[in-house]
Amino acid sequence: MMYSAHVKVSQFLSRPCWSSNHLGVMSSRFMLQWRYSSSSPNPKPNVSGKRKMLLILGTGWGSYSVFKTIDKKLYDVMVVSPRNHFLFTPLLASTTVGTLEFRSIIEPVRNAGFRESGHFHLSYATGLDAEKQELFCTSVLNPDLKYSIPYDKLVIGVGALTNTFGVPGVSDYAFFLKEIADARRIRTRILSNFELALQPNNDLAENERLLHVVIVGGGPTGVEFGAELYDFIEQDVARLYRKMQGQVKVTLVESNKILSAFDARLQGYAEKKLKERKGFEMIQSSVVEVTKDMVRLSNGKIIPCGLVVWSTGLAPRPFTASLDFKKNKMGQILTDGYLRVKDDSSGNIFALGDCADIEDMSLPCTAQVAEREGRFLSQFLNSGCDEKTSKPFSFQSLGMLAYIGRYEALTDTPQMKIKGVPSWFLWRSAYLTRLGSWRLRMQVPLDWLKTLLFGRDISRLE
Amino acid sequence: MMYSAHVKVSQFLSRPCWSSNHLGVMSSRFMLQWRYSSSSPNPKPNVSGKRKMLLILGTGWGSYSVFKTIDKKLYDVMVVSPRNHFLFTPLLASTTVGTLEFRSIIEPVRNAGFRESGHFHLSYATGLDAEKQELFCTSVLNPDLKYSIPYDKLVIGVGALTNTFGVPGVSDYAFFLKEIADARRIRTRILSNFELALQPNNDLAENERLLHVVIVGGGPTGVEFGAELYDFIEQDVARLYRKMQGQVKVTLVESNKILSAFDARLQGYAEKKLKERKGFEMIQSSVVEVTKDMVRLSNGKIIPCGLVVWSTGLAPRPFTASLDFKKNKMGQILTDGYLRVKDDSSGNIFALGDCADIEDMSLPCTAQVAEREGRFLSQFLNSGCDEKTSKPFSFQSLGMLAYIGRYEALTDTPQMKIKGVPSWFLWRSAYLTRLGSWRLRMQVPLDWLKTLLFGRDISRLE
Repeated sequence: MMYSAHVKVSQFLSRPCWSSNHLGVMSSRFMLQWRYSSSSPNPKPNVSGKRKMLLILGTGWGSYSVFKTIDKKLYDVMVVSPRNHFLFTPLLASTTVGTLEFRSIIEPVRNAGFRESGHFHLSYATGLDAEKQELFCTSVLNPDLKYSIPYDKLVIGVGALTNTFGVPGVSDYAFFLKEIADARRIRTRILSNFELALQPNNDLAENERLLHVVIVGGGPTGVEFGAELYDFIEQDVARLYRKMQGQVKVTLVESNKILSAFDARLQGYAEKKLKERKGFEMIQSSVVEVTKDMVRLSNGKIIPCGLVVWSTGLAPRPFTASLDFKKNKMGQILTDGYLRVKDDSSGNIFALGDCADIEDMSLPCTAQVAEREGRFLSQFLNSGCDEKTSKPFSFQSLGMLAYIGRYEALTDTPQMKIKGVPSWFLWRSAYLTRLGSWRLRMQVPLDWLKTLLFGRDISRLE
Repeated sequence: MMYSAHVKVSQFLSRPCWSSNHLGVMSSRFMLQWRYSSSSPNPKPNVSGKRKMLLILGTGWGSYSVFKTIDKKLYDVMVVSPRNHFLFTPLLASTTVGTLEFRSIIEPVRNAGFRESGHFHLSYATGLDAEKQELFCTSVLNPDLKYSIPYDKLVIGVGALTNTFGVPGVSDYAFFLKEIADARRIRTRILSNFELALQPNNDLAENERLLHVVIVGGGPTGVEFGAELYDFIEQDVARLYRKMQGQVKVTLVESNKILSAFDARLQGYAEKKLKERKGFEMIQSSVVEVTKDMVRLSNGKIIPCGLVVWSTGLAPRPFTASLDFKKNKMGQILTDGYLRVKDDSSGNIFALGDCADIEDMSLPCTAQVAEREGRFLSQFLNSGCDEKTSKPFSFQSLGMLAYIGRYEALTDTPQMKIKGVPSWFLWRSAYLTRLGSWRLRMQVPLDWLKTLLFGRDISRLE
């Protein structure tokens, strides 16, 4: 393998005559273009004996399940992701109000075991040379550090972004709910607004605004966030912010029906239950503008509010968009039944999860699908990509769950439709069994117990 | 009570004809000067029947123990603090590497119970009118919101800041270790530097810098942080960042002796133990400059480093400095034996903890002293400030504890000097019994267990 042009810079920088605090300055001033080479301190991917280099992009449901189940005797596995942990997304909404703590639903990927610690890269994938079998990335922590990694097999599982549908103000003022950082921002904002509304500003309209939360999007994420928020209001605000309990308002804006993927009866039950809640309003409309302190609906109505949580479908990440593979109209990479990227002749590039779509199958963008695709792909890769021994991917849903608050949930499986408290038990136990590590299986129920015994922690830390 | 000039603004603002998103904009544009008055939605402090208004500043060891032990039938208690939680500071160092989680050592003050939720103010104290018995404050969350609170009795327990001794660069580049936010910043920086050092930048000098931590100040905070850091390196880095274990370096800079308050034998033991640790260096010198990537010593020596933790004594907060009471040379407010502020004729102003000093006693600035002063002050206030029934404050130290890593600690009490592992048991059990709530008494040992079983969580969340 050869150096690329820029490496002269780094050679020049590492001259002993330079004191390393100069280096600090320099290396951030120069753009280091780097390429794995035999002279590098890092592993030499496809020179490592017989093992092939499997490069996995992302640490979400799809990628992480490939990483956990792949045969590491057959492959040298390298992971590139802007996130060094796996996030148990179905419980993310619970962390926005402190029912669960942030670190109780994440798992450091390094715990899952790498052959070398250098095999995980906290970087963004920025480009791909399918010809040369080479991926280009940029360090998350040092944007000037750009380098490339060669691979034998590539798994693209970078997920997707929340779709703003180009509505002005959304990316500046609305909060998404996809990562721990989002949940933390929401939690901080809620607690800040409560504290602020209690301060002597003599301005009731402003207080009403601060205590009004608008949720855009009636999918499971939006509804579960609303449910958790209400549990917080009824169980903790009543106790700790008595004065404001009556003033809190939540408006859920959904252009369609909420939880539309669910069985009609369950869906209707959820709607009824949510509407029963004091200060809760459901509006069938769409948002045309978001500002610092309000949301404007398509009918011109203005809703002053202190927090907007936006969860309305997915949009492709810049990396996915940059790839010139065949895609569907949602911008997802099209694959065949073996998750091989369409019109990639090599057959060494795979895509799964929210960033991909199996042609003529169009599965929902859920954790369940991604995780199953991941396990399938591992088997296929472990088999040496042998089409004779392994059938194409097929998916039979285990069903859907959604928490709707007050210890009630919906369970919608092919076999049964359950609602109410029994379903809530199912919801909790189902997720407990799905948690990926003993650390989480220990911490999550303890957090639930703590919330039950002591209430949620309303300390404002930022 | 009368409105002050500015209130016209807020009256004007609250005219119904203004839509409240205007209000949002306006209220942040205008400066609302506010004053409690019978027309306000908030409690009317000293009009609340027979109860006197006790105004407590701060939520640290001193103030919080006053708040918890004061007789709330005798006093209407109001608390003003930039922090809505109490922090168990002796365990703060453990959170910088994840031995304990941040929320496992804090207690929301609202849990301790207020007569009205409006009695806690997330605000800074900015000024005092001792004549009119009135405190001026500014909202933490809305700097334009300035108002005043009248009181009958005032307790000043605002604590202190870390002393930078005017060394250039400290406030910009060094990390302090006083609040949860500090601990989180340190944790994020450590994890970021480890990830960064693993990336293919081909620049060994830069990696050495990233993995070099400089601790300035050899007091308990500095030493315990160093100890926790080393446990992290030996127990987790060895496992998760194998490659770098050998490269990590820690330098402790102290102009005097480390843990100088401790018994000489224990002190010597700690020094010996720390020096044994691979890559650990102790330098007896002082720092004259801190930059983005290095520390300069008084002897001119430059130490390139990726993190500087600064804990070198205390400096008064702006509020304390603004008060024109008699102070000692460290800028602490001088009080008499009943914690009454010297040369305040009214006898209604008390000061305790790190911001105060009992004349001719000069006690150490420790949690133990502050907490004891708090309990004493409550008794005195509960007794109706009766000098006949209550003796002046006296302090007999229970001793000192310090963790030095590898399950070893120092215990220095009048009765006994213990070092090593037995002392570590003592250290942990002592703190367990001191934890202020069952929530913490449950969570802290569980965190210890989790760390023992599963290691520390190295997920980078920011």
